[in-house]
Amino acid sequence: MNTPKPIKHALNVTRAADFAAWYQAVITEADMAEESGVRGCMVIRPWGYGMWERIQKLMDADIKLAGVENCYFPLFIPLSYFAKEAEHVDGFAKEMAVVTHHRLIGDGKGGLVPDPSAKLEEPLIVRPTSETVIGAAMSRWVQSWRDLPVLINQWANVVRWEMRTRMFLRTSEFLWQEGHTAHATREDAMEETLRALEMYRAFAEGPLAMPVVAGEKPENERFPGADATYSIEAMMQDGKALQAGTSHYLGTGFAEASGIRYQDKAGEHVLAHTTSWGVSTRMIGGVIMTHGDDDGLRCPPQIAPHQIVIVPMLRDDEGDAAVLDYCRALAAELRAQQAFGEPVRVLVDAKAVKAQTKRWGWVKKGAPLIIEIGPRDVAEGKAAVIRRDKLYQDSGKLDVAFTPRADFVGQAAGLLEEIQAALFSEAKARLEANIAREVTDLAAHFKGDEDKMIGWVELQWARPTGAALDKVVEQLKALKLTIRNTPLGAAPADGVCFFTGAPAVERILVGRAY
Amino acid sequence: MNTPKPIKHALNVTRAADFAAWYQAVITEADMAEESGVRGCMVIRPWGYGMWERIQKLMDADIKLAGVENCYFPLFIPLSYFAKEAEHVDGFAKEMAVVTHHRLIGDGKGGLVPDPSAKLEEPLIVRPTSETVIGAAMSRWVQSWRDLPVLINQWANVVRWEMRTRMFLRTSEFLWQEGHTAHATREDAMEETLRALEMYRAFAEGPLAMPVVAGEKPENERFPGADATYSIEAMMQDGKALQAGTSHYLGTGFAEASGIRYQDKAGEHVLAHTTSWGVSTRMIGGVIMTHGDDDGLRCPPQIAPHQIVIVPMLRDDEGDAAVLDYCRALAAELRAQQAFGEPVRVLVDAKAVKAQTKRWGWVKKGAPLIIEIGPRDVAEGKAAVIRRDKLYQDSGKLDVAFTPRADFVGQAAGLLEEIQAALFSEAKARLEANIAREVTDLAAHFKGDEDKMIGWVELQWARPTGAALDKVVEQLKALKLTIRNTPLGAAPADGVCFFTGAPAVERILVGRAY
Repeated sequence: MNTPKPIKHALNVTRAADFAAWYQAVITEADMAEESGVRGCMVIRPWGYGMWERIQKLMDADIKLAGVENCYFPLFIPLSYFAKEAEHVDGFAKEMAVVTHHRLIGDGKGGLVPDPSAKLEEPLIVRPTSETVIGAAMSRWVQSWRDLPVLINQWANVVRWEMRTRMFLRTSEFLWQEGHTAHATREDAMEETLRALEMYRAFAEGPLAMPVVAGEKPENERFPGADATYSIEAMMQDGKALQAGTSHYLGTGFAEASGIRYQDKAGEHVLAHTTSWGVSTRMIGGVIMTHGDDDGLRCPPQIAPHQIVIVPMLRDDEGDAAVLDYCRALAAELRAQQAFGEPVRVLVDAKAVKAQTKRWGWVKKGAPLIIEIGPRDVAEGKAAVIRRDKLYQDSGKLDVAFTPRADFVGQAAGLLEEIQAALFSEAKARLEANIAREVTDLAAHFKGDEDKMIGWVELQWARPTGAALDKVVEQLKALKLTIRNTPLGAAPADGVCFFTGAPAVERILVGRAY
Repeated sequence: MNTPKPIKHALNVTRAADFAAWYQAVITEADMAEESGVRGCMVIRPWGYGMWERIQKLMDADIKLAGVENCYFPLFIPLSYFAKEAEHVDGFAKEMAVVTHHRLIGDGKGGLVPDPSAKLEEPLIVRPTSETVIGAAMSRWVQSWRDLPVLINQWANVVRWEMRTRMFLRTSEFLWQEGHTAHATREDAMEETLRALEMYRAFAEGPLAMPVVAGEKPENERFPGADATYSIEAMMQDGKALQAGTSHYLGTGFAEASGIRYQDKAGEHVLAHTTSWGVSTRMIGGVIMTHGDDDGLRCPPQIAPHQIVIVPMLRDDEGDAAVLDYCRALAAELRAQQAFGEPVRVLVDAKAVKAQTKRWGWVKKGAPLIIEIGPRDVAEGKAAVIRRDKLYQDSGKLDVAFTPRADFVGQAAGLLEEIQAALFSEAKARLEANIAREVTDLAAHFKGDEDKMIGWVELQWARPTGAALDKVVEQLKALKLTIRNTPLGAAPADGVCFFTGAPAVERILVGRAY
């Protein structure tokens, strides 16, 4: 009997050994991002940025389909805008980058310093969101009911000064989209809030192959100023939750602070109801921690910058030309195929690097299909096909399928769709297997190493508010737990509140989180 | 005999009366952009931003086709990076936004101030370009000849503090792309420099319908640190030049400053040759001043967010439903058509606003085709078609073609392509008609009102350098003239230098500029 050899994986650290170190190793080894020299800001390299471009392209189509138009608002916001907001909003965060000067001058010692004579009269804040300026713009744009709804979105960089940063998950500068809408009625605004939430859910579970739970945040986790906050929550492979997108119904409070009033059909001047909703480069961190394995990232085909990478096995001899020709012809045939309603994205990696090195480079990046072509494949009219989602045979050997070229071309789009579905199924099964519903002792359930896969707990509760809620939050905090959300699709409550024993009104998810 | 009535145009100011005021009126009346409350920063509204999205989409495809990959570099750059650059570069600009604090704190009087305890040890600069950090990244990425070429690009916002700003043309914050490449040899780098220049020329003359002259800048107009700078120059309707894109061959100087060295095949460590190239939202200003007329913008169909706008003429009665149905069915048929290799972009403008107001709104925005549909059109199966590039009949009446619906659907894509071509031809004829080649007295030629359409002068010269060139530059400056470039396609020199009388070596273009 053969005992399978232990697999020598492509990364130096495994998920089981050190999840946080593994996460960082994936980012580095997959050339997704690197430190920039500015604390908390990263350089996003082509493979990581290419994923963001795919996310932008697909989500932007969803956003436009909903009638939302893109705008661009300035990077800088006058300090006075925040003073106004600070009055209105309790949870107002003050960690922001402050611009105080507009010129540099020599310091007489060969260096440069801010020019004291170029101090700004009013400091400028680098936007942590464009909310306040968008509110001001809406107050100019909205006069009559005819001007509603206003449906706008911005793709931009924002800055929130962070003390503890982690690439993609929490960086001082990040990239995101922020949707802001104004409506005549509560019903219209709530419909938009839930539309955006459903757009995010479908996007996470579609292109990202990342199963999520969509639901409402508890009162204590609401966005400052919101009447209701909704989120999608994904489960990472260490069992922690990642809030991957939020949508807020802001009632009329934001409109009041910004002066967004309209004349209704009866001639009355009334406040608009507004919403906001956003996702960010954080999603990429979620994709890594949902789909990565000990060989690196497994990139969902729908957001993979290259879905199929063809590696010619070159020998620096006269046979190379035929191999390259074959690769390029194969690439052209593949690009004529459609997967997910788009032409298949194919790269021929002809760099002057050993084929073996390139193979493992693309494994670590998580290219969904890696094709190796050597002189023998050319002679036999075949392609050596590696599926990134099923890298090894049961024996532990690399699983390479030598497929006749025409067969592979015919199968390629289907294979990509199969990989997308397989990644989703695997993650969906993990999510479902790791929500416990019969827990009676949270401390016992969540005891042990924080990296251990424990998952989430579904509880019934009476939806306490105010001080009663604070007590629950404190109790959870002692176990490093938070309420993630009230799932929209959960079964109705049929028991008593886990915390108070009162009749339960709904179910909530509780877990550790990023 | 009928004397045509003078046309009452949609704008309150004409190009002839006040070109600068007209430019601002187009931007305001077409809802393209507006003041933001932060000096020198604008809010780009959907119609303006939609044009930028089109520019990004089309140019990004060109960039990717050339094998260049997109990255993202941080917004902030440590001050020390500039101190290094300031030593190297004479023309180093110091007008930059300086971040000195990372937190706000209450001032005890209900306001906010930068928190003195959160002063940064080293100030951060908001990137005026990402050049220095990209150089630092390249020095990490490039080790061997195998790593070359490095071909990267970034789409981003950048900030250069400007004292005198004008929307799209010169703003403190603007949006752009910056390409940066590193190569093994001068030949490769020069090839890339000229590839980018040609990409810009084709882009300006294609999607923007904006004829340009591509050529090399004189020594005094080179980008600081560049060995050679190339530009595309467009002629605005007031005869001034707009530099609409630049491409630089940086030699090995930038690589030396950034430490971009590679081991060549012989094992020697040598400097890479680098390039950079960029275009910005300034292009949109160029489009306005190339194609706008006294009724507003005429947007080239290839970059129009909506190419065809259908305006239902609603009467708030029971006939409205049939009109709307007809409009939506027509839109669907039009969207199934392809123009410029893409599906036609169609909007049904069903807002609760008078049809007349909507018509003129779309005229001012410059939608290429405006279609009005009333009950009679529905009954007769027709569409009332307005071509934005030919708004009036010779008589001065609005030119509306009542076309059978099926005929219009069949013609629509062709009409859009015809409009694109017509806008280019008109601008091309103007450019050619306004380059004078027989000028002997520049002062006489350029005398008079600065707004007067004078255009450019083509001169032969001996390409003086150093002090001799300075003298020429001073002489031109007295007439508010600059050398625009040495057109790549110009006829060979066959005379004497306009300035020195020495044998001429090439032809240059001289003019006023934005």
